[in-house]
Amino acid sequence: MDFETAEFEQRTIRAQELMHAAGFDALFLMSEPEVRYFTGFRTLFWQSPTRPWFVVVPAKGKPIAIIPAIGEPLMRTTWLDDVRCWSSPDANDDGIALLTSALAEFSTVGVMMGRESQLRMPLSDFQNLQSDLTGTRFVDASPMVAGLRLIKSDAEISILSEICTIASNAFDQAGQLFHVGQPLNQAFKAFKIELLKQGAEDVPYLVGGAGRLGYADVISPPDSRSLNESDVLMLDTGATLKGYFCDFDRNFCLGEPEDAVKQAHETLWLATEAGLNAARPGATCSDIFHAMRKIIGSEGGNVGRYGHGLGIQLTETPSLIDWDVTVLREGAVITLEPSMNVSGGDMLVHEENIVIRDGAPQLLTRRTPRQMPSI
Amino acid sequence: MDFETAEFEQRTIRAQELMHAAGFDALFLMSEPEVRYFTGFRTLFWQSPTRPWFVVVPAKGKPIAIIPAIGEPLMRTTWLDDVRCWSSPDANDDGIALLTSALAEFSTVGVMMGRESQLRMPLSDFQNLQSDLTGTRFVDASPMVAGLRLIKSDAEISILSEICTIASNAFDQAGQLFHVGQPLNQAFKAFKIELLKQGAEDVPYLVGGAGRLGYADVISPPDSRSLNESDVLMLDTGATLKGYFCDFDRNFCLGEPEDAVKQAHETLWLATEAGLNAARPGATCSDIFHAMRKIIGSEGGNVGRYGHGLGIQLTETPSLIDWDVTVLREGAVITLEPSMNVSGGDMLVHEENIVIRDGAPQLLTRRTPRQMPSI
Repeated sequence: MDFETAEFEQRTIRAQELMHAAGFDALFLMSEPEVRYFTGFRTLFWQSPTRPWFVVVPAKGKPIAIIPAIGEPLMRTTWLDDVRCWSSPDANDDGIALLTSALAEFSTVGVMMGRESQLRMPLSDFQNLQSDLTGTRFVDASPMVAGLRLIKSDAEISILSEICTIASNAFDQAGQLFHVGQPLNQAFKAFKIELLKQGAEDVPYLVGGAGRLGYADVISPPDSRSLNESDVLMLDTGATLKGYFCDFDRNFCLGEPEDAVKQAHETLWLATEAGLNAARPGATCSDIFHAMRKIIGSEGGNVGRYGHGLGIQLTETPSLIDWDVTVLREGAVITLEPSMNVSGGDMLVHEENIVIRDGAPQLLTRRTPRQMPSI
Repeated sequence: MDFETAEFEQRTIRAQELMHAAGFDALFLMSEPEVRYFTGFRTLFWQSPTRPWFVVVPAKGKPIAIIPAIGEPLMRTTWLDDVRCWSSPDANDDGIALLTSALAEFSTVGVMMGRESQLRMPLSDFQNLQSDLTGTRFVDASPMVAGLRLIKSDAEISILSEICTIASNAFDQAGQLFHVGQPLNQAFKAFKIELLKQGAEDVPYLVGGAGRLGYADVISPPDSRSLNESDVLMLDTGATLKGYFCDFDRNFCLGEPEDAVKQAHETLWLATEAGLNAARPGATCSDIFHAMRKIIGSEGGNVGRYGHGLGIQLTETPSLIDWDVTVLREGAVITLEPSMNVSGGDMLVHEENIVIRDGAPQLLTRRTPRQMPSI
């Protein structure tokens, strides 16, 4: 297990306190992040969409797992006592009868159905479940669970700090890894291997771009175009350790950057400083957004926000955006990710990962230099 | 783009023929595999759950994309003409108004809601959409889309063949990569780096196990236990190229295998031979399952099936299992994955990837030797 049993007990107790206040009799969870959050069940097998996985958190006591038999050995290593299995895939009933009987005693059941959530089971099975459980009302548990997950424990922060350090170390090798004439996809591959060598367990996310005045597209896979003199190369990585993500980028110039690039880089660095100064317990996401926005002006990129939560997922709620008034508290882990247009559709993006602390936030990433590094 | 425009045109035309026969006016798709299948839109950005992505396939003409603005540059490089965007995340409407107006003209709309599907948008947004579109009936499109995706084009098979060869080449380096005394997680890391060096773009899936009599758990991440003399080491990888997966494993013995292991390996090899002999156009998944089952007897492992579809996802429908009577046709790409208990809870698993052809199937993987290799 990645954590002591006490970690899962505390998560469950915190959830049960909120459930009690909200009048929920149980949480019914099925997505990888939530199943892992409450049980510790960590596997890449979620890549296979074939089988559904269910966890029920009752108002008292430990969570109950209702899962395919192939996952039983792993789930038995967690802190759970009650693990109910069926042989999946099944011709007619992929866990719904077991689930129905587990949920039948509850009147009000929280399900993730709001912002950023997905239903990780067939919709028709969920509809059948609703029809079968005539005495059960399903209500939205998304804000409750998101609020729990936003505040990280010391043990979680320690893992997040470690993966951010690993990725910072990998970025420090940029001068050895990247060069003019290198195809972009080879640069990405070299960096991915470096991340693994530096200690990342996995690199589920690595995107970026290159160009003299920045990049228009920050989500595409790299192509085989060669890096040119004076190109800005940006790599943005979500590498993982024990299933926790870092999420930050770095910009490098292969030679001397254009003046517009220098200036944009400095502006983004200053915007991040403003974000760091605004990131205090009691501040809202909107406050931090506006602190950064004040520096950048109206030249933001098409990213739509200036940062987000970070943890078990590459991006978690909340969003650093005008309308998100989530209040940050100590232990919240977020990214500061200002972006701005440089010229035409080309932009620059910056990113750092921080923990909200009593006073100044703790940087998990090694702060990027104010001047864009040349390699 | 990973394919010529003609590839997407043909996929769409085949879909529209089936839609016409079934009386569907449109398909409404939102999951990564389906969005990519019909548009070519490929990005790791799906790791972020924040934003929903929608594609509508009308009864005639090209698909329509309704997506967050951050994805517009990439979607504009695809064969689509109609790309509608909004700035996401939005406080109140994450694409639902755009979606409502796009779907309003259709009476019967297919949605993935059956076996192996997930709803990749907030359930509450889907429920609102249903309420808003009083004249629209949502029906299950899962079997239709699964049937389309099962039969691969030559271009798809060529990519699948390449990634299987890359992974076969990586497995051929086992003697250099793995050794007695090596921590299991270091063995996994060495293999992941080897896959990347051999040409894999990514390694989203790598699991396995080790033990003198096999392994009980085939889905866990590796721990730091050291490999012992006579251990069987199994690695099962889903590496990718252009977003297409291989999915197969190999077993190696660090020294001389136990007799029970030798025998189980031979049985699984023979079961795979039986599977290869049964895998003909017109055969059902159940036929192939029973051909393998006849060799293995009742000592199957807890995997629940003996293979599955393969392509954009690590596992796709159908399942090689007793109850799945899907008829295989030329161009179907599947895995043969027999497993059996060796002793107590410990088992062995074998896997090969094949294409159904007119006559004997085409092996995409380099066939494992009949005797378990010692390294």
